[in-house]
Amino acid sequence: MNGPTDPLDEPGGTRRRGRRTGGDTRAVLLRSAKEVFAERGYEQATVRAIAERAGVDAAMVNHWFGGKEKLFTAAVELPFDPSILVDIVLDGERESAPERLLTAFVSIWDDHADGFAALVRSFSSTASAAEMLRTALSRFVIGEALGRLGVDQPRVRGALVASQIVGLGITRYMLRLEPMSTADPAWVVAALAPTLRRYLFEDLALPPAES
Amino acid sequence: MNGPTDPLDEPGGTRRRGRRTGGDTRAVLLRSAKEVFAERGYEQATVRAIAERAGVDAAMVNHWFGGKEKLFTAAVELPFDPSILVDIVLDGERESAPERLLTAFVSIWDDHADGFAALVRSFSSTASAAEMLRTALSRFVIGEALGRLGVDQPRVRGALVASQIVGLGITRYMLRLEPMSTADPAWVVAALAPTLRRYLFEDLALPPAES
Repeated sequence: MNGPTDPLDEPGGTRRRGRRTGGDTRAVLLRSAKEVFAERGYEQATVRAIAERAGVDAAMVNHWFGGKEKLFTAAVELPFDPSILVDIVLDGERESAPERLLTAFVSIWDDHADGFAALVRSFSSTASAAEMLRTALSRFVIGEALGRLGVDQPRVRGALVASQIVGLGITRYMLRLEPMSTADPAWVVAALAPTLRRYLFEDLALPPAES
Repeated sequence: MNGPTDPLDEPGGTRRRGRRTGGDTRAVLLRSAKEVFAERGYEQATVRAIAERAGVDAAMVNHWFGGKEKLFTAAVELPFDPSILVDIVLDGERESAPERLLTAFVSIWDDHADGFAALVRSFSSTASAAEMLRTALSRFVIGEALGRLGVDQPRVRGALVASQIVGLGITRYMLRLEPMSTADPAWVVAALAPTLRRYLFEDLALPPAES
């Protein structure tokens, strides 16, 4: 099985880096990153461990991806950098953050409807993909954006916001339930923004486990 | 490929009904139903066409499933009869329908968390499964329950309700985003019921296409 036909393996079992092209290195790093992030979670997955598994120097992570966070983003296969969402949420009046978040979500995914289905397929098929998406949401979107928005209970509010936004994605791009699937983005934003506003800013009871 | 080793096929290409056991008939009917519902949609898929494809008498549909609607339910592989949701929504004060719907959803799926993931995997993988689930939602839940609840714009309101409930399912059972994944059902119901109440009963703009 592991014969010389696999360009990454030499007969002796060591990998000769010099032969690899840039595209190879990037692809191998990405594959290793998916494995290591899935096995250890974001925090415990070090750049060094990912590079080691790929058989390349750790500096290649910076070279090809610009760091661990961006490597993670690439591994989750989102069609956008989730840190952009943070900027969008924070860039403007606090009260209108729901409209900005919804507008960004719909404008990104309306152009990548098949990508949304692929993402859901991926996290519904493998626990590791679900773990990666959960990390992406918790850490980069909820933790960062809601933390800096200055809301209390960001984890609780973030999970509620995520539930409505993910459900919008499913009904608009996968179930294609009318009129959610074809409605104008402006209508979707107006219909859902009050929900997000309540989840973000109004009084909410804490779940019993946290109270 | 189609040799005598396939118990459903005789060498001559005709199917001998007498040889089939009851379990066979049910399984073959279910397989035909999935195909025919997927190809033609709920309305156009007749009991006769499904029975014909299965090579059994149309009376077998009533015998094994109790009719087309229940055969459809079995084909969608929901762990409950969606018509139960209609009873739940209608059985009590109109104002507290959101609480009843959420309580039913969480109590059903908390016992079938893997089933929810399997359902999503199925409708994210094949257009036909998405089409069947869309039909189940539109026809039996939204059309029937909201129609009888006497709300205006049931299609619009139903799609909004579906977006929040599906998103609850994804975050609780698949992404397992804390605290949504472990929170007490009562907390989930209390947190989301005002959203459903607004979608069901408050003034909503119609999407431009319908106005």
